[in-house]
Amino acid sequence: MKWNRSLPSGTKDKLFREANGAYQLERQVNDILKKRGYQRIDTPVIEFEDVFYSEEKNEKEFYRFFDKQGRLLVLRPDMTMPIGRVIATTGIHPPLKLSYSGKVFRSNDDMLGEQNELTQAGIELIGYSSLKAEVECITCAVELLETLNVPNFHFELGHAQIFRFIVTSLGIENDAKLELQLYFNNKSLTDLHRFVEKFPSELDAFICAIPRLFGEADEVLAMAKELLPKESQIIPIIDELEMLMRTIKTYHQNISLTVDLGLVALMDYYTGVLFSGYADLVPDIFLRGGRYDHLAEQFGHSTIPAVGFGINLDTLVTLQYQLNNLASLDQPTTLVHSSLAQLAKADLLVKKDPGYQLSLFETVEEALNYGEKWQYQQVIEITQDKIHVIKVGDQE
Amino acid sequence: MKWNRSLPSGTKDKLFREANGAYQLERQVNDILKKRGYQRIDTPVIEFEDVFYSEEKNEKEFYRFFDKQGRLLVLRPDMTMPIGRVIATTGIHPPLKLSYSGKVFRSNDDMLGEQNELTQAGIELIGYSSLKAEVECITCAVELLETLNVPNFHFELGHAQIFRFIVTSLGIENDAKLELQLYFNNKSLTDLHRFVEKFPSELDAFICAIPRLFGEADEVLAMAKELLPKESQIIPIIDELEMLMRTIKTYHQNISLTVDLGLVALMDYYTGVLFSGYADLVPDIFLRGGRYDHLAEQFGHSTIPAVGFGINLDTLVTLQYQLNNLASLDQPTTLVHSSLAQLAKADLLVKKDPGYQLSLFETVEEALNYGEKWQYQQVIEITQDKIHVIKVGDQE
Repeated sequence: MKWNRSLPSGTKDKLFREANGAYQLERQVNDILKKRGYQRIDTPVIEFEDVFYSEEKNEKEFYRFFDKQGRLLVLRPDMTMPIGRVIATTGIHPPLKLSYSGKVFRSNDDMLGEQNELTQAGIELIGYSSLKAEVECITCAVELLETLNVPNFHFELGHAQIFRFIVTSLGIENDAKLELQLYFNNKSLTDLHRFVEKFPSELDAFICAIPRLFGEADEVLAMAKELLPKESQIIPIIDELEMLMRTIKTYHQNISLTVDLGLVALMDYYTGVLFSGYADLVPDIFLRGGRYDHLAEQFGHSTIPAVGFGINLDTLVTLQYQLNNLASLDQPTTLVHSSLAQLAKADLLVKKDPGYQLSLFETVEEALNYGEKWQYQQVIEITQDKIHVIKVGDQE
Repeated sequence: MKWNRSLPSGTKDKLFREANGAYQLERQVNDILKKRGYQRIDTPVIEFEDVFYSEEKNEKEFYRFFDKQGRLLVLRPDMTMPIGRVIATTGIHPPLKLSYSGKVFRSNDDMLGEQNELTQAGIELIGYSSLKAEVECITCAVELLETLNVPNFHFELGHAQIFRFIVTSLGIENDAKLELQLYFNNKSLTDLHRFVEKFPSELDAFICAIPRLFGEADEVLAMAKELLPKESQIIPIIDELEMLMRTIKTYHQNISLTVDLGLVALMDYYTGVLFSGYADLVPDIFLRGGRYDHLAEQFGHSTIPAVGFGINLDTLVTLQYQLNNLASLDQPTTLVHSSLAQLAKADLLVKKDPGYQLSLFETVEEALNYGEKWQYQQVIEITQDKIHVIKVGDQE
């Protein structure tokens, strides 16, 4: 027996209520996006590796393989880059409001216990430079999460240019840049103090404060402005975040929203505001997005402003499952049994009542056993000349 | 510019109406299956290669790659084998009526112009040995194709054991078997005559008639019985097909249905009746299925009777597109524009009318240009103190 019964790392089977619930959840999300005016786009799971070319990206995460001509293919790790490819290489013209749902793949290590195959849905607003597009992303996400009854969700906003501007103004590259990124991510006070001693600049106070520059927007943004030199190019970024926060707050009075100025963009295509979404009982960030005005350039196209976000639907399915909020399965009450010759008559009866189901068993005894096991109320037996109702449990 | 703008062979982007139509079509199919009492199952796209192990299969068609531990993975070429794996290796008990939809992958040559990434939907009836399950497959397929308005569809039935029984009784293997299979597939009269001279048996007359043993069931099955020795084990197979044909005909008086006794199963897990579905304007077989009672054994489980079919949804999407039957996109009539500060008010108005859409443009001029390009009727502009309706095209 050469059979290996385990599944590849980070993949899983979904059955019955979970599979149905996941599918219904994906449909709910797509319905909302459609109603908000988004047009669906569906790109292949398999792409040439170039599509995901990135200077900053850690490339170990892809599943790579070859086609018959020996060209390097990957399973898409992301939906935004393929959409960038479509925009830049086909004749379609922005502005566009696009939505997608489908699987993405990451080849993570076994040990990490991460999902290597996951279902993502999201939107991309292409050709919109206005801050309204960022507001629309948050509004759309709020509508999705409220509809799905996700409890106590929370958004955190950052900006991709803060870290990049610091890197440029310090003139650091490679190792020093990665080091700084690590200290930002870890909110490591002492390491940052040591770092600015090595690379002193007028941004020292700001850099050292990064581990504390997260939380309520009013406080954090005011504090940041005090720490920055008056002419700093980071000031307009802070102003933009202030304006965005103010607009979102008037729109959605009750949502929980904070900023984190130490956020470093995961993907190097981000150029502006960054979003992360969290919720109670969800261990990871389940929503990520932001502005990425330079993506089209990667595909040889002129600059197109763009902003979008993606949601990990599997995480939401797990959450709904935990909360017992997943769509439940309709429990049929009645099995309709007949001989092969009477099957058409039985099927006709089944069509009249959603609680009826056709028995495909050879004998009525098998139908009764099945009915008992799965808590059906009755078996209706159709013979050539009569219809016979048997209450389940009453047989023998 | 290292960018390569083409897509991997056999893959495509779907946009706008096609993407929406494909998604709606898949939903329609899944809704019908759910209503017929099928429970959804969702297995991973990535599987260990062993799952698709087959003695007969031509293995060149898989996309193969390695995980971090160096284990061989494939992109699933098929949905039935993974479902067999689930049934055989998890604790779930038949009988089960399962349904699925999702992508499958085949690494075909560039030249062939075939789909290498396609969307399939289908059903698997697990634990049902009765011929009722075969009838249910056809009934279910008929309901799907009628709902989708597929014009002039046609089913062809065969039986996996006819070819297998001949192979066993002639005692042929490897090359001779492949040779016979080729002559069956090509309906090659002269080659079959030459073949029976080399391997004579009491089946000679039947084997030589194979190229003519297709068409109307009544005629073909009667002719087959005359050609077969009275005690041949193929006779009960012919009887089974007769019984099945009779039942389907009483059920679905108007459907087009023929038999082909020369059908050779594409997959070696098939053990009984085989179905193929055709339709006008569709160049290939778009539906395939049959009985496969030994699949669970491949995964070390005892025999479980099973029957099912799969439909190539992409083929149906192409057909619906040709026939102009794909779900159309709702065309909004009105763009609602405001300043950033009034965006919440604008969104509230948009929610009241499905024909309204939120403008995310910076200026009302941009909204008007967009409205003109996409044939909106009007732009509603919301300012702090008034609402202003502008007919599209009225601006100078």
